[in-house]
Amino acid sequence: MKYTPINFGEKLKTFSERWSPKIIAQLNDYQFKLVKIKGEFTWHSHEDTDEVFICLQGKMAIEFRQGVVQMKEGELFVVPKGKEHRPVAKEECSMLLVEPEGVVNTGDNPGELTADDDVWI
Amino acid sequence: MKYTPINFGEKLKTFSERWSPKIIAQLNDYQFKLVKIKGEFTWHSHEDTDEVFICLQGKMAIEFRQGVVQMKEGELFVVPKGKEHRPVAKEECSMLLVEPEGVVNTGDNPGELTADDDVWI
Repeated sequence: MKYTPINFGEKLKTFSERWSPKIIAQLNDYQFKLVKIKGEFTWHSHEDTDEVFICLQGKMAIEFRQGVVQMKEGELFVVPKGKEHRPVAKEECSMLLVEPEGVVNTGDNPGELTADDDVWI
Repeated sequence: MKYTPINFGEKLKTFSERWSPKIIAQLNDYQFKLVKIKGEFTWHSHEDTDEVFICLQGKMAIEFRQGVVQMKEGELFVVPKGKEHRPVAKEECSMLLVEPEGVVNTGDNPGELTADDDVWI
């Protein structure tokens, strides 16, 4: 066992790719993923699971069909299972995602922005 | 549905009690809990689950029988299932815990520091 913590800032320095979640930790069958975003993601939902967003650096929003959640550093939001949503950010923003192992970023709407769901950093 | 995020700093201002986790969010059957600590907790383990610690404010350590993890703001550590551990902090520190619903803070070693496992703020 390694007695060293995972530092979000240091891990974030190791990649620049956007919309491509990188796994940093696993809790039972749940994973913690860092992701950098800028611009508008694709509308999608996850039929089988809620999804937690934690904003680590910058500002972002999670758009829903009937509302929007504005988020800044130190804030958390739970996107409910099956709820269509779209993360957006005017400037680059870094987030921590928490969700079950194997969740694909584009959920029920795969396409150009679909990322590998098993990249560890 | 409320389109407002959960702000860690604002939630932390609402209580001063130490060693008593307060639930702020739920992801499927997992919960996110804020806790303030100072001093030494009791040695314990959780036989059925890993446990994630994220340091939000201050500095802390997680002691194990054969090592210690030093943590500061913006760092995460996964305490493995069944691994005996003891959180400690010289000065007050605020943490975010992530673990399955119903996990009791003192695990297999209940006592004076055992807290209610179902307090939402």
